[in-house]
Amino acid sequence: MSEDTTAIGVDWGTSSFRVYRFGVDGEILEGRKAQAGILVIDDGEFEEAFEELAGDWLDAAPDVPVVLAGMIGSRQGWLETPYLSCPASVDTIADALVPLALKRGRVVHLTPGLSVHGDDGVPDVMRGEEVQILGAIDLLGTTGATLCLPGTHSKWATVEARQVTRFATHMTGEVFDVLRRHSILGRGIEHAAWDDSAFLAGVARSGASGGFLHHLFGVRAAGLFNDLSPDSAGAFLSGLVIGHEIRAAEPSDAVYLIGEDELVELYRRALEALGHSAMAVAQGAAACGLFLIADSLRRGKSR
Amino acid sequence: MSEDTTAIGVDWGTSSFRVYRFGVDGEILEGRKAQAGILVIDDGEFEEAFEELAGDWLDAAPDVPVVLAGMIGSRQGWLETPYLSCPASVDTIADALVPLALKRGRVVHLTPGLSVHGDDGVPDVMRGEEVQILGAIDLLGTTGATLCLPGTHSKWATVEARQVTRFATHMTGEVFDVLRRHSILGRGIEHAAWDDSAFLAGVARSGASGGFLHHLFGVRAAGLFNDLSPDSAGAFLSGLVIGHEIRAAEPSDAVYLIGEDELVELYRRALEALGHSAMAVAQGAAACGLFLIADSLRRGKSR
Repeated sequence: MSEDTTAIGVDWGTSSFRVYRFGVDGEILEGRKAQAGILVIDDGEFEEAFEELAGDWLDAAPDVPVVLAGMIGSRQGWLETPYLSCPASVDTIADALVPLALKRGRVVHLTPGLSVHGDDGVPDVMRGEEVQILGAIDLLGTTGATLCLPGTHSKWATVEARQVTRFATHMTGEVFDVLRRHSILGRGIEHAAWDDSAFLAGVARSGASGGFLHHLFGVRAAGLFNDLSPDSAGAFLSGLVIGHEIRAAEPSDAVYLIGEDELVELYRRALEALGHSAMAVAQGAAACGLFLIADSLRRGKSR
Repeated sequence: MSEDTTAIGVDWGTSSFRVYRFGVDGEILEGRKAQAGILVIDDGEFEEAFEELAGDWLDAAPDVPVVLAGMIGSRQGWLETPYLSCPASVDTIADALVPLALKRGRVVHLTPGLSVHGDDGVPDVMRGEEVQILGAIDLLGTTGATLCLPGTHSKWATVEARQVTRFATHMTGEVFDVLRRHSILGRGIEHAAWDDSAFLAGVARSGASGGFLHHLFGVRAAGLFNDLSPDSAGAFLSGLVIGHEIRAAEPSDAVYLIGEDELVELYRRALEALGHSAMAVAQGAAACGLFLIADSLRRGKSR
């Protein structure tokens, strides 16, 4: 097996843990996953979990680069890596990799996160998404794009000349979740229900006057008037919050979406309802980004 | 005592219960309060609680109007009253009072709530604040104003020719509370601390590009960069949320504030930081509004 392996990539997030073994052209020779996101690793036993999932690969391919990305490089992870300022590319990320020696002596590399500062000096950060973003750009065969990674903390990134030049995080998924679980709006929501047209009505409502905090109360008031049933209110709220995110992100061109199918489809529909074109990026962006960084690392070493 | 009493007013909200006995010119002859907001009344025993607090007044002044306002007229209260559409005045509210016969035979009157519909048909409602608003207009000796009642669900109202012509509710206080208690932002907040300059920095930040959901994540990111300490983060978040409310409300002139001293002072400072003039309305707006409605009811009966 080992003769084919050119790199090993690790995508280790808060709730997921995936490893990839790459061939000469970056093709995935083998992938594995474990239910061992960093939040469920006890007593900092990251090395044990990694050896368990990929130790045989390390044995069989002793000289290939091993790159780890994601929340594994956060304060809650294995080793906290710094944030690299935008603009950032595959090569600048590879140059900023943080080496980590395993007990067996093998040195692996953790990616830095990315940071950017707004005009008023307020920072923004990402950790892991940049690998997906740069991988997606390669998969798309382009050099620039607007990308959105919807989720708990949605990321919007602009890539120009294969560099992440700027990005912004929106707390969309988390705000939706705390509102429906912990605010008065939850009383009017049947959580198991969904209503597509209510979702689109929420997206449309996000453009009305009055602002986000006022629109939220409208969900409650519409319920009092029976204009919005509990079966529709959750989808309406979802559309409202996602609509506010998209309007604030002000995408000027086509948006490429990266994420879970269901959420990507929801954003695609919201984006199209707001007059934007939207396309899902095929699966595999994270693996592709990991290979590119590992490949840059190897080329850098031989430079 | 009874010879002086011209009306009895009841301000019965979610967490407060106050009664007033008025003289011939609306002056408060006596006021009482109980720790018996509607949420702590067991088994719907509203009448018992009311008799306990004001039964002797009912005995002593058998013919004066008795007006009850606030959440006591909500679905969770004594008797649900309808919503009266804006524009609404003291007289139209008095005409829409809902009579309720006590066991002793005395008829008291509950105020309706107010409703308004946005251009896109989404409703908004208030219940109790309209009494404070119309009372405040009378206390101010004016016929029109922009008023803000900050709180869990902040109300912004426009009064013209002594009529509430439109209003909007913002879920400001509740959103602030669920975010600091239940979102990741809470991890970076020392709840007992306060920082005035961080509050004003949050107000200023609310005008930056990127929108509310992005600005929220900035609180987290600034904490990661140690740009915002836990002792400052709560005040910054408060200023951010209040700043978004004020900007969305787009007040065009001076704003009169009604509410608890501490919150009114916070809003006054935020409004002034955003270039608006702001003044607190003296205490007593609710009592004044109750008298005006009771007085209108009496005059209406004699018409």
